Amino acid sequence: MPTSDNPVPPTDRDLVLTRIINAPPEKVYRAWTEPELIKQWFAPLPWTTPFAETDVRPGGASVITMRSPEGVDFPNRGVYLEVVKNKRLVFTDAYTSAWQPSDKPFMTVILTFEDVGGKTKYTALVRHWFTADREEHEKMGFHAGWGQCTDQLEALLAKI
Amino acid sequence: MPTSDNPVPPTDRDLVLTRIINAPPEKVYRAWTEPELIKQWFAPLPWTTPFAETDVRPGGASVITMRSPEGVDFPNRGVYLEVVKNKRLVFTDAYTSAWQPSDKPFMTVILTFEDVGGKTKYTALVRHWFTADREEHEKMGFHAGWGQCTDQLEALLAKI
Repeated sequence: MPTSDNPVPPTDRDLVLTRIINAPPEKVYRAWTEPELIKQWFAPLPWTTPFAETDVRPGGASVITMRSPEGVDFPNRGVYLEVVKNKRLVFTDAYTSAWQPSDKPFMTVILTFEDVGGKTKYTALVRHWFTADREEHEKMGFHAGWGQCTDQLEALLAKI
Repeated sequence: MPTSDNPVPPTDRDLVLTRIINAPPEKVYRAWTEPELIKQWFAPLPWTTPFAETDVRPGGASVITMRSPEGVDFPNRGVYLEVVKNKRLVFTDAYTSAWQPSDKPFMTVILTFEDVGGKTKYTALVRHWFTADREEHEKMGFHAGWGQCTDQLEALLAKI
């Protein structure tokens, strides 16, 4: 059954996480855009995030490196497509910089931060080009993984 | 041998056309952005372009429909990624609107219009995600096709 963290996705190529976060949109936006904050929540523990670089503007690139418990680094490269401060952030891994195609266009992430009485209705809509990629992403543990990261994000925001 | 119309592409996933066009960048830019002009040059004759719609801003969508001599319509949908009036235009068919993934991310087109003494150094850099798509595009007749369309574009600009 769909829950609030796992609603029916808009299409069979999408995955969605929705959550009410106990912090205002400004803080959630900061956690998604400031490297020093990203490093504190982005990867699901015991994974870590030793490196983050963000050029937050349409066409700007980002690199966020996740490190496995075994010490293997996985850099995530992307480009921002749309930036509305404190409200909305869209990026994709289809490019590694403006406009260099990546080896594999996998997903586009559409984040929205909606103010609901001082809290944030946080929605991460993750769109894939191919149904098979959506299925693989779900099997890799999208809901558990993004859910855990969102817990870590929320815990961080309680401290800043 | 590479010619001025067919330089060595930057990578094996790219195709490039470069041409000096006998019109200022402002006019070349108009021909690429105004639907009534697009319809007069976009498809290589005897193909025609019965329909064009452009929302020229980052995230804006475009639809340009080409019609075969047999009367079959082929709509080309895309989204603008970068817009610098009279200078630069970037769009991709990886999205059909902001930010709906298309069925197949095929190419990103980076157009530059450089003023050279009142004429335009026109460069169309066409980047593909997959080498196989680049090869297919070349075999489909990229150089002859884009070359012919650029002839049509230049002929139109002599009249406006």
